[in-house]
Amino acid sequence: MTHDAAGTSGDRRGPLTPELIAQYHRDGFLLLPPGSLAEDLLDVATAALPEVLTEDGPARVLERDGRTVRSVYGLHRSHPGIAGLTRRAALLGAVRQLLDGSDVYVHQSKVNVKAPFAGDQWEWHQDYVYWLTGDGLPRPDLLNVAVFLDEVTEFNGPLTFVPGTHTAGLLASVDAQGMPLGYEDAPAWVATLTADEKFRVRHSVIEELARAHGMVSPKGPAGSVLLFHPNILHSSAANISPFGRAMLMFVYNSVTNRPEVTGRRPDFLADPEAVALQPIGTPAGR
Amino acid sequence: MTHDAAGTSGDRRGPLTPELIAQYHRDGFLLLPPGSLAEDLLDVATAALPEVLTEDGPARVLERDGRTVRSVYGLHRSHPGIAGLTRRAALLGAVRQLLDGSDVYVHQSKVNVKAPFAGDQWEWHQDYVYWLTGDGLPRPDLLNVAVFLDEVTEFNGPLTFVPGTHTAGLLASVDAQGMPLGYEDAPAWVATLTADEKFRVRHSVIEELARAHGMVSPKGPAGSVLLFHPNILHSSAANISPFGRAMLMFVYNSVTNRPEVTGRRPDFLADPEAVALQPIGTPAGR
Repeated sequence: MTHDAAGTSGDRRGPLTPELIAQYHRDGFLLLPPGSLAEDLLDVATAALPEVLTEDGPARVLERDGRTVRSVYGLHRSHPGIAGLTRRAALLGAVRQLLDGSDVYVHQSKVNVKAPFAGDQWEWHQDYVYWLTGDGLPRPDLLNVAVFLDEVTEFNGPLTFVPGTHTAGLLASVDAQGMPLGYEDAPAWVATLTADEKFRVRHSVIEELARAHGMVSPKGPAGSVLLFHPNILHSSAANISPFGRAMLMFVYNSVTNRPEVTGRRPDFLADPEAVALQPIGTPAGR
Repeated sequence: MTHDAAGTSGDRRGPLTPELIAQYHRDGFLLLPPGSLAEDLLDVATAALPEVLTEDGPARVLERDGRTVRSVYGLHRSHPGIAGLTRRAALLGAVRQLLDGSDVYVHQSKVNVKAPFAGDQWEWHQDYVYWLTGDGLPRPDLLNVAVFLDEVTEFNGPLTFVPGTHTAGLLASVDAQGMPLGYEDAPAWVATLTADEKFRVRHSVIEELARAHGMVSPKGPAGSVLLFHPNILHSSAANISPFGRAMLMFVYNSVTNRPEVTGRRPDFLADPEAVALQPIGTPAGR
């Protein structure tokens, strides 16, 4: 069914079929094959990557090893080419379909590098708690869009979801105090970006949900697009394989859900402008 | 084919069919379903596990977190029930088939716990280099037998092989100096048992081999038995899932390949007796 995702549904509001929309609302995530939303997502992102990774500064976060790039934030603000990607009509159309037709902007963007042999884990967590507590976003009316910049396999630390948990609300967690090991001298907001999650969902809760719903690691070739809900419980293992697992991530937020807290976190973690994006190109994305 | 592994081949020397033997020699590993070699492997091992895990002492190695049990060594010496398992006729028969009919003994045994949420990685390595440098075993005439004590899935840190690399000889590695982080006060031999491998195969070598041969993570229900060569390149990711991944491991060695170095490592890492095992039960294992 996902092969029909781009522009063939006859739905004027966007490229996703009603079946795909229902699947997203049931599972909390949706994997689309390369080219479904915007043909040039992979090429533009891949072309920008070398420059993105070499720019030193606070928006670039290193792994615990202090050498390997873990993530670079704020790409939609610092790289015009990537800003353009966030406005591709088919991509925006799909996002709006999953956010009840609302106008949207990008609250946060980043690349997660997951370098070969060195890319560290992301512990089990939900995303929304960070945007709630950090930026005061009133509701979980956001959508994560992850573009695979490498093939994702069982070996290179795929994102792992507990399907259906996006409807469970805020899960019981433990708020880790202090700075994680290896980041003792970093600013406080860095504590939300490392392999040690600040808000750790209780192990008993994770086990119970995984027993009830199972786990799924969506896999696919470079260029695949993974859409997922800000409240779905997810994690990803370290990448011990010799192959990279870079992902470009856009976090779209409804313009009716703007931050109530501003200035607490850097602009590259919480976009201060929050202006509705205008589409570029055709809704079919081709 | 593996369903026919136990006692149906008509081969008087052991339970493995010629096809399975050929598969082992081609790939460097062989996965057999539960019950193929000895019906009670899982039950006996599972019954012994609670006692094994609570015995404090140098044969028990903790994870870097200093709390979680990583491995317990020397079980064939400390637990009569497990010693009995190592002598099950069908298991011994299969081992002898893969070691050219040689009499064998258990050079090392252990349980790797891979605890839920906490079981750490094993970096890419070959096993034989440790037995060569640590104990002076002249040749790689050994066989690893791993009994799954839990279901092994893509989520709980399965062993991952680069098939066919068992014929590549000793791969270029870097000998890590000093003690790994978290084990600074431990005896020197502990450096060979932690998440940071002492002999690290060069990343360029791993990448080249994985590109040429691919990677495989054998998965299966509890009770499955995984046989693998001491020179196959392998690793396993940390277990971030809520489900355990304990494995019981027997390392069989040919009696013609006895250690030339004795007394350097504790008895629970290198069996000093090296006496040919006599089989218990029927070769069909039922």
